[in-house]
Amino acid sequence: MPQTILSPDRPFRPLDETQLVDYIKSTLVIRELIGFDSGKGVIDVKEVGDGNLNFVYIVAGPSGSVVVKQALPYIRCVGESWPMSKDRAYYEMLGLKKQGEICPGHVPEVFFFDRTMALIAMRYLKPPHIILRKGLIACIEYPLLAEHMSEFLARTLFFTSLLYNSTTDHRRGVAEFCGNVELCRLTEQVIFSDPYKVTQHNRWTAPHLDEDARAIREDGSLKLEIAGLKSMFCERSQALIHGDLHTGSIMVTVDSTQVIDPEFAFYGPMGFDIGAFLGNLMLAFFAQDGHAKMDADREQYKKWILKMVVDTWNLFQKKFVSLWTEHFGSGEAYPPEIYNDPKLLQQVQSEYTKDLLHESLGFGAAKMIRRIVGIAHVEDLESIADVSLRAHCERRALGFAVMLLKERRRFRSIEEVNDALASR
Amino acid sequence: MPQTILSPDRPFRPLDETQLVDYIKSTLVIRELIGFDSGKGVIDVKEVGDGNLNFVYIVAGPSGSVVVKQALPYIRCVGESWPMSKDRAYYEMLGLKKQGEICPGHVPEVFFFDRTMALIAMRYLKPPHIILRKGLIACIEYPLLAEHMSEFLARTLFFTSLLYNSTTDHRRGVAEFCGNVELCRLTEQVIFSDPYKVTQHNRWTAPHLDEDARAIREDGSLKLEIAGLKSMFCERSQALIHGDLHTGSIMVTVDSTQVIDPEFAFYGPMGFDIGAFLGNLMLAFFAQDGHAKMDADREQYKKWILKMVVDTWNLFQKKFVSLWTEHFGSGEAYPPEIYNDPKLLQQVQSEYTKDLLHESLGFGAAKMIRRIVGIAHVEDLESIADVSLRAHCERRALGFAVMLLKERRRFRSIEEVNDALASR
Repeated sequence: MPQTILSPDRPFRPLDETQLVDYIKSTLVIRELIGFDSGKGVIDVKEVGDGNLNFVYIVAGPSGSVVVKQALPYIRCVGESWPMSKDRAYYEMLGLKKQGEICPGHVPEVFFFDRTMALIAMRYLKPPHIILRKGLIACIEYPLLAEHMSEFLARTLFFTSLLYNSTTDHRRGVAEFCGNVELCRLTEQVIFSDPYKVTQHNRWTAPHLDEDARAIREDGSLKLEIAGLKSMFCERSQALIHGDLHTGSIMVTVDSTQVIDPEFAFYGPMGFDIGAFLGNLMLAFFAQDGHAKMDADREQYKKWILKMVVDTWNLFQKKFVSLWTEHFGSGEAYPPEIYNDPKLLQQVQSEYTKDLLHESLGFGAAKMIRRIVGIAHVEDLESIADVSLRAHCERRALGFAVMLLKERRRFRSIEEVNDALASR
Repeated sequence: MPQTILSPDRPFRPLDETQLVDYIKSTLVIRELIGFDSGKGVIDVKEVGDGNLNFVYIVAGPSGSVVVKQALPYIRCVGESWPMSKDRAYYEMLGLKKQGEICPGHVPEVFFFDRTMALIAMRYLKPPHIILRKGLIACIEYPLLAEHMSEFLARTLFFTSLLYNSTTDHRRGVAEFCGNVELCRLTEQVIFSDPYKVTQHNRWTAPHLDEDARAIREDGSLKLEIAGLKSMFCERSQALIHGDLHTGSIMVTVDSTQVIDPEFAFYGPMGFDIGAFLGNLMLAFFAQDGHAKMDADREQYKKWILKMVVDTWNLFQKKFVSLWTEHFGSGEAYPPEIYNDPKLLQQVQSEYTKDLLHESLGFGAAKMIRRIVGIAHVEDLESIADVSLRAHCERRALGFAVMLLKERRRFRSIEEVNDALASR
């Protein structure tokens, strides 16, 4: 647990850049981190948050920088009309700490947390780190991306599941993260509900996609499928998941991959994290034609994105099963006295990962759909200036996602998904 | 919440009958209930607990009786060598209160609870109330049993699920009952693990069933199925379930049905409760041949038990779906703006109850198996004096349960289960 001040004499208040400087001046831990402990020099603060929820600052001092993130009691991109518990900062801190313990190479350290102020100070991810989504738009290949993300997924999901833990520890974690219910409800609304009904929050490229959006709202079999996934999201405490693992929650360089922003963390279905990442890669894939120039068609880059989809799943599966075999008997799900036959264990693992693939494809598809006809869109598609071209890319992505959500169970491997994508 | 004393100056101690009388004399609420408030008359105490876990007393005073139940910090039927949190009494009290609010006609009222002493005082279920299991052994028909149990199941499961509640309320309940983890772990061990491995706890009618027990421990596909059910038990918070709803947790007369002993209560899969009841009816069915006499073959009674299996499920399904339709839009699982088409809602409900039937059959089968080759057996079979005859009944029940666990998904209705039972 990072050093925490409860500051009972200092009630919550949102900090602007000037107030943040004062806050830091009065906070020894942060002063020391940026080399301002003597009080000499300058503290430079820059707001850099481009997410939907919070304010994020890079705080630079005489000899170092940190990132400071503050949660306000509403959703940033909507405003005070959509209240949201600022205690999400507490769950983000818990998530960062837990995932950092499990996978230190891919999660920034938390240095300081102030629960009253809903304020986290964490490691500054120096340039050339950029948000992965921006890298995907800029056509940059990250040779270690699948390796790193499969490592993050395999380790964080395995080590917080009943495959590794006792039921007692598991239920303690489940109970703790039940407190993060407001963020879960936000997901339930924007991913599993809004795209399937008429609501003022929804938007899409109009009028081009009017009919496509309407078809989704009138597709009974799609609604049946989304209901099943929503039940799983609400009821199944399989592992401590990140809860918002899209390509905007990942910062990268060619040799570093860092997962940030787990304020949606709770005990949920593993496939929700895997699907978030794969689904956002697929959105990036469908957006490429919108970014192609006459002299560079991006076909090569599209192949690389598909390779990331395939490699991430296959490496994840391999690493996850290896952890399971290595730590077999540590968790309470499969007692070794029962699953004592190597062939039986292999069969159990194969059934488990087969279901997980189908669940991941389902959640991934749901995340694609909501990014095209729901409230929050993705820059991959939004940044395509030619509206007709953007609508064309969006329609293809949407069509694929609807098919995937309905027919996910017929895919026996990620290669079959790759083939279906490549043939679009 | 019943009147509770925290009695900080009175630490926990197990009460024998004499000490219980003293405890009652010093506890006004109970004194008043039994008409001993004046201090005149006699308090008569009789231990009647025949369950595996706790001590239960009927406390009779000058003008009334109550039942007092105390949980000791170990499992009664094993002794101090198997410790078990006495705080299970707290969860039993919560379970009784909640289920009593939802279904007052079929749950005894709680009058008093002392958390430190792990002691509950509740309504005394007067004769001719007997434990249903004893009634089933004694060949007594209860004409309202299916009506009452389907009512209890439909109401307690529906009103504690996301079909009725908001996610916020649901997660609050889930978090609270995560504390009852020791009882969940006991279930995980005795139902989902022990029967499938070699352990000193297991017993069966030997040597008759030696091969049958061994076959279960060596059946890979059975172990795959039980793993899936165990995951569901550990991970899926679908509703507040009773957690131990066998025929020994139900007291009956011809016109009253009362569900007691919910100390295993937690947010788990609905099918676990439904399956417990149906599975124990099926055990009673298979035990009948062991109780038949030459002049009365019990064929008629077996038909009645099968009718209870069929009627309970069908009435449950009808009532559950009616509650769903009546309260449609109250819970957050299926927003009416999305599931706005009556045909679609019907399809959703039909899918939901189809899955629930299969899950109930799976859990029911698991409960049958553990009662024949696990630690805790049932009087239905244990009371068959002729060992060979008992083994014969047990083998038939076991064979059916193993088939049902593996092939449950092929049954499209409870009538098909009935036919499979009747043809055995």
